[in-house]
Amino acid sequence: MPAVRRLKVAVSGLGRMGARHAAHFLHRTPKAELVAAFTPDPKEVAWAKENLEPWGVKIYTDFDAMLEHQGLEAVCVATVTTVHAEHTTKAIKAGKHVLCEKPLSTKIEDCQQVLETARQNPHIKVMCGFSRRFDASYLNAYNLTKSGSIGRPTILRSQTCDKYDPSGFFVNYAQFSGGIFVDCNIHDIDLALWFFSAGTQVVPRVKSVVAFGVTAVEPDLAKHGDVDNGVGVVEFYDGQIAYFYSSRMNPPGQHDMTEIIGTTGKLSVNANPTTGLLESHLATGIHRDIPQNYYERFENAFVEEARQFTDAVLEGKTVPIDLESSMEAVRIGVALQESLRSGKKIWFGREGNQVEETGTKARL
Amino acid sequence: MPAVRRLKVAVSGLGRMGARHAAHFLHRTPKAELVAAFTPDPKEVAWAKENLEPWGVKIYTDFDAMLEHQGLEAVCVATVTTVHAEHTTKAIKAGKHVLCEKPLSTKIEDCQQVLETARQNPHIKVMCGFSRRFDASYLNAYNLTKSGSIGRPTILRSQTCDKYDPSGFFVNYAQFSGGIFVDCNIHDIDLALWFFSAGTQVVPRVKSVVAFGVTAVEPDLAKHGDVDNGVGVVEFYDGQIAYFYSSRMNPPGQHDMTEIIGTTGKLSVNANPTTGLLESHLATGIHRDIPQNYYERFENAFVEEARQFTDAVLEGKTVPIDLESSMEAVRIGVALQESLRSGKKIWFGREGNQVEETGTKARL
Amino acid sequence: MPAVRRLKVAVSGLGRMGARHAAHFLHRTPKAELVAAFTPDPKEVAWAKENLEPWGVKIYTDFDAMLEHQGLEAVCVATVTTVHAEHTTKAIKAGKHVLCEKPLSTKIEDCQQVLETARQNPHIKVMCGFSRRFDASYLNAYNLTKSGSIGRPTILRSQTCDKYDPSGFFVNYAQFSGGIFVDCNIHDIDLALWFFSAGTQVVPRVKSVVAFGVTAVEPDLAKHGDVDNGVGVVEFYDGQIAYFYSSRMNPPGQHDMTEIIGTTGKLSVNANPTTGLLESHLATGIHRDIPQNYYERFENAFVEEARQFTDAVLEGKTVPIDLESSMEAVRIGVALQESLRSGKKIWFGREGNQVEETGTKARL
Amino acid sequence: MPAVRRLKVAVSGLGRMGARHAAHFLHRTPKAELVAAFTPDPKEVAWAKENLEPWGVKIYTDFDAMLEHQGLEAVCVATVTTVHAEHTTKAIKAGKHVLCEKPLSTKIEDCQQVLETARQNPHIKVMCGFSRRFDASYLNAYNLTKSGSIGRPTILRSQTCDKYDPSGFFVNYAQFSGGIFVDCNIHDIDLALWFFSAGTQVVPRVKSVVAFGVTAVEPDLAKHGDVDNGVGVVEFYDGQIAYFYSSRMNPPGQHDMTEIIGTTGKLSVNANPTTGLLESHLATGIHRDIPQNYYERFENAFVEEARQFTDAVLEGKTVPIDLESSMEAVRIGVALQESLRSGKKIWFGREGNQVEETGTKARL
Repeated sequence: MPAVRRLKVAVSGLGRMGARHAAHFLHRTPKAELVAAFTPDPKEVAWAKENLEPWGVKIYTDFDAMLEHQGLEAVCVATVTTVHAEHTTKAIKAGKHVLCEKPLSTKIEDCQQVLETARQNPHIKVMCGFSRRFDASYLNAYNLTKSGSIGRPTILRSQTCDKYDPSGFFVNYAQFSGGIFVDCNIHDIDLALWFFSAGTQVVPRVKSVVAFGVTAVEPDLAKHGDVDNGVGVVEFYDGQIAYFYSSRMNPPGQHDMTEIIGTTGKLSVNANPTTGLLESHLATGIHRDIPQNYYERFENAFVEEARQFTDAVLEGKTVPIDLESSMEAVRIGVALQESLRSGKKIWFGREGNQVEETGTKARL
Repeated sequence: MPAVRRLKVAVSGLGRMGARHAAHFLHRTPKAELVAAFTPDPKEVAWAKENLEPWGVKIYTDFDAMLEHQGLEAVCVATVTTVHAEHTTKAIKAGKHVLCEKPLSTKIEDCQQVLETARQNPHIKVMCGFSRRFDASYLNAYNLTKSGSIGRPTILRSQTCDKYDPSGFFVNYAQFSGGIFVDCNIHDIDLALWFFSAGTQVVPRVKSVVAFGVTAVEPDLAKHGDVDNGVGVVEFYDGQIAYFYSSRMNPPGQHDMTEIIGTTGKLSVNANPTTGLLESHLATGIHRDIPQNYYERFENAFVEEARQFTDAVLEGKTVPIDLESSMEAVRIGVALQESLRSGKKIWFGREGNQVEETGTKARL
Repeated sequence: MPAVRRLKVAVSGLGRMGARHAAHFLHRTPKAELVAAFTPDPKEVAWAKENLEPWGVKIYTDFDAMLEHQGLEAVCVATVTTVHAEHTTKAIKAGKHVLCEKPLSTKIEDCQQVLETARQNPHIKVMCGFSRRFDASYLNAYNLTKSGSIGRPTILRSQTCDKYDPSGFFVNYAQFSGGIFVDCNIHDIDLALWFFSAGTQVVPRVKSVVAFGVTAVEPDLAKHGDVDNGVGVVEFYDGQIAYFYSSRMNPPGQHDMTEIIGTTGKLSVNANPTTGLLESHLATGIHRDIPQNYYERFENAFVEEARQFTDAVLEGKTVPIDLESSMEAVRIGVALQESLRSGKKIWFGREGNQVEETGTKARL
Repeated sequence: MPAVRRLKVAVSGLGRMGARHAAHFLHRTPKAELVAAFTPDPKEVAWAKENLEPWGVKIYTDFDAMLEHQGLEAVCVATVTTVHAEHTTKAIKAGKHVLCEKPLSTKIEDCQQVLETARQNPHIKVMCGFSRRFDASYLNAYNLTKSGSIGRPTILRSQTCDKYDPSGFFVNYAQFSGGIFVDCNIHDIDLALWFFSAGTQVVPRVKSVVAFGVTAVEPDLAKHGDVDNGVGVVEFYDGQIAYFYSSRMNPPGQHDMTEIIGTTGKLSVNANPTTGLLESHLATGIHRDIPQNYYERFENAFVEEARQFTDAVLEGKTVPIDLESSMEAVRIGVALQESLRSGKKIWFGREGNQVEETGTKARL
């Protein structure tokens, strides 16, 4: 019998990412033990019967029942975005630590409620899973930034570009996703908050945002106030600027990249995308492949995320991602989406509230 | 005696770029013959006595006198930006073809006057020297775009990043340069106009612009309403977006890059910068150098520019860069600089005039 | 209680690689269960008490005793090279499936005995762990080769370059390792046998070998007939050539790379080495890191090797690496080392026996 | 009238490379003046009438007559390889400086005669045009090597890989070319001699050579004792090894690359081949092109070669490539080709003479 103390974890939601989270906790997080999983979906239940139950995982079709699973200590919330906040809140109240898929919610009010609940339960660890923070290359970049290798981080450019999905899945999904800036660029926004606070550990405060977009391949997105190509700029108080691009039509696959530009150096993550170390030299030139989706790109980061969350809970450490920062990411994403729709630049006061632009607020 | 017909060219201004243009016409443009050069600067005159005169080039300290040089057919205007328009206008009126360094002017009115003069002298070839259009990689990208390889060009990202110049030369120069968007990003703006019209040959019309910036390393730039890091977005009518970045503090050297993103493909120019084909594998990792300045990066493009201009004149062909487009680039650069200063998003009507933003002008 | 059938595995040897194999079977091979481990070394025992025992792994200091562990089904042999063959043979005879670290032995006679034992126990799976065959990039290259994407594979270039180890560990180790061609290039030799048989599934037969080497940084290697930089060429019957390079002094880290050159295409694995996706743009140029040792480079391949071995045993499939081919790799490595020492080119007959070079054996 | 002193040059041979050399001296070597050209070939004469004569170049169909051209100072010999030595010798005797295309000859005796003639005319500059020495990336690598950046250069790997020419031109040409090691790898051999002498300025002495080859795509090459893929190793006295690869079937184009491996660093030239800075991101992956032939790769190097030769003559400096080293390259190339044919390893004594291998000559 192992004498090792392992964290008893349940996964809520067994869709695309939920199934992966379940596999990570089951097979790739030695100090965690997947004990339960919840899904209301018959197809997902069938999958779980075949793939989880034989490993001793109990399957639930009722979330509340799952929360009462004997000995359960933590929940990974990986349901559809619209119930992230509700499940997280319930789990916290039930005394379970929570790893919640990003974003906390597409609505800032829901985020605030999660934070309030978390504040009332300070012994409970709650973390929003911004997976890129656990990618080895981003982590190297962060440590270099923190150690001062590039001077003061000043400009951040980041993009999230998906391979075009001809099924048009994302068109219908646009009504729930919060829009391209909340669904895709939320990662880039989170990176900006992370890197800009690398030296000071103070989350930077947004001053203004502006967004642009077009529907180049899926005109129906406009129905939901969304686009398939978005460009956004976020200006922070204290002289930092982040600018973002997102696309639903990147031909060769997933190309997420980031540059962190400091006063004495620049760090570039994935400027030169590739799947592995293979290049084909053929009569038509030199070719390489890139990941086909974000999971191919970030699989190891998701595993590392599960491991670090597990370690933080077991060892009583602070979780690596601050919940307030995850809410701030939603605030900025929502504002970008609003700017996209209205065509207006949106200003924030130093307290985080939206303010009116005034003619006298000269930039320089 | 050669029976080849060669174009008799003069260069006006022998500063940094003027001296290079002179060398290009003298030694690297077989069908051109550098016959004269003008500079009012004693140091430049001394340089010319040593480097140009022995090759049969006549040196002038008076621009008007140079225009009267026997047999002179064309002038390359490479003086300080503030006299580009004046010299170009004079040369046209004197019946000389003109290759003018970019930008035509930092003021849109001056550009308009040059265009008016050019219109009145339709037999005279006038071209603004946007050198990147003659770079082999950009040219390949343009031809692929034109041939439809990437579908409809929709998004363009482009940056102009200089190595930090600790002499601070560019700080004082900021009062003449028109600001970072007119001085640096003008190239990127020109590329947007070029690539977005690749299929249609119609210069796209600007709908709105917005700009942001910070003074990260040279606070004194603020005196001239300028910054050392700028981010700008330009939205065009008909669903195209260009976004730009410029920096005066890129540590390893010059990094100018562009992505042209179409509905079915993306072309990336210089995402992976390098000086040549050498990499050093040392105990500290793998290292490579990049060009130290724009001339190291674009030397061959400048030579090709001189050759194509010469060929166009000798063969009576249209010059490769449309003068109206070069004026449009200035208009957009000036608007970005204005947005940077005011903090406001600037809107244009379909006729190119600035208009007030209205609350009802929803984007989607 | 899990209903999943898991393979009960023991690891023999808990040195550098043994400890890693133990961790892979324990935490990263879901269908395997590490039940026992053997090491005679007190330090390794102490490590195992802390890191394996709490997970329910029984520690043995006697190999034969471990073989009798209740329910044990398979053994991973990761002891020093000199006992690979002995442990493998014993384990086979005890009815255990074996995954043996490369090389089977540094002596061809020992290899032959392992093969003989394996032949007598056809129900036992025996595989030599040439880890590179499980690396994703090599696997992609193999599948492309097999499918005919590069025509007939004709030339293979492959290298194994270690970062210089200033402790000089490898100097003393040279007396046991079999020499640089047996210790390092054995991987490259195995790749040649694998890729050259991709289409036909017939292991190619060696015709002649020649090797060269120098002691550039560790002259003491000469005492053991070894070098720190080796170049070898292997010619096969039927018109295929493999050439190899190995080094003990690669400054930035581990750089193992391979090119498979066919009549219509070339596949290049790791021509452009890098640790991850991060590049640093600093005042001194652009920099990137590479893996510091072979485990950083091939960690995932070792895990995949454990998984595929486990699957093959559980499902009664053929193991992915043919044992005869692993012996052939040793034969070639030993011949290269012999050529290095004698300065002579070594010839083989079609039956695999060494023959005398004759003056009349013209190449063309 | 220019007061600049320009070198009066003639080009002998106006085939593929001859025509290019003529253009380089005519248009891209400011301090040279192309005054004459020789070719016996009517087609080449026609080309010259159109392309050279209008620029004042006199066309000759008799080489000796050309040597008597009024004021002629230097000759660039670019005829077929078989007359390189003869023309060079005649030109030297006529008091003309000579830039001769590589190789000096395919026969070592002819090389010796050229050297003897050169020695008898010490005021005449004679240089064999190994163009890679003038390539910017190679030059950077050389200067780094010379300055000690990589410690002692110990191993050199170099390859010359041509795009497959389906016309089969090179098959017939094989009877004149000297074979693949003399025709292609001669460049790589020259690089080995250059880099291995970077610190000491002493040309290293060959100890042994061995070569292998196959006819993978053009079996008819065997008629001329030649192959379409060759692998050769050259061992030098004093512990340096160079190994080479050449191919006539590289699918995407020309891929010539070199690694210079020193005791503390490695320099890699063109490990990551590309034509320019463009990459295409398409649905089929990321693609880039590479040069289609050696001239696309080395055009600038040829121009620089012409300039440096011209400068050396005008300024009375030593030419950058030592003639003795160019003969040594032929000696090694010829020996490799001989080893390819006989299948034997070839040994040299310290005086450069071939010797018999002896059983007692142990390597270590």
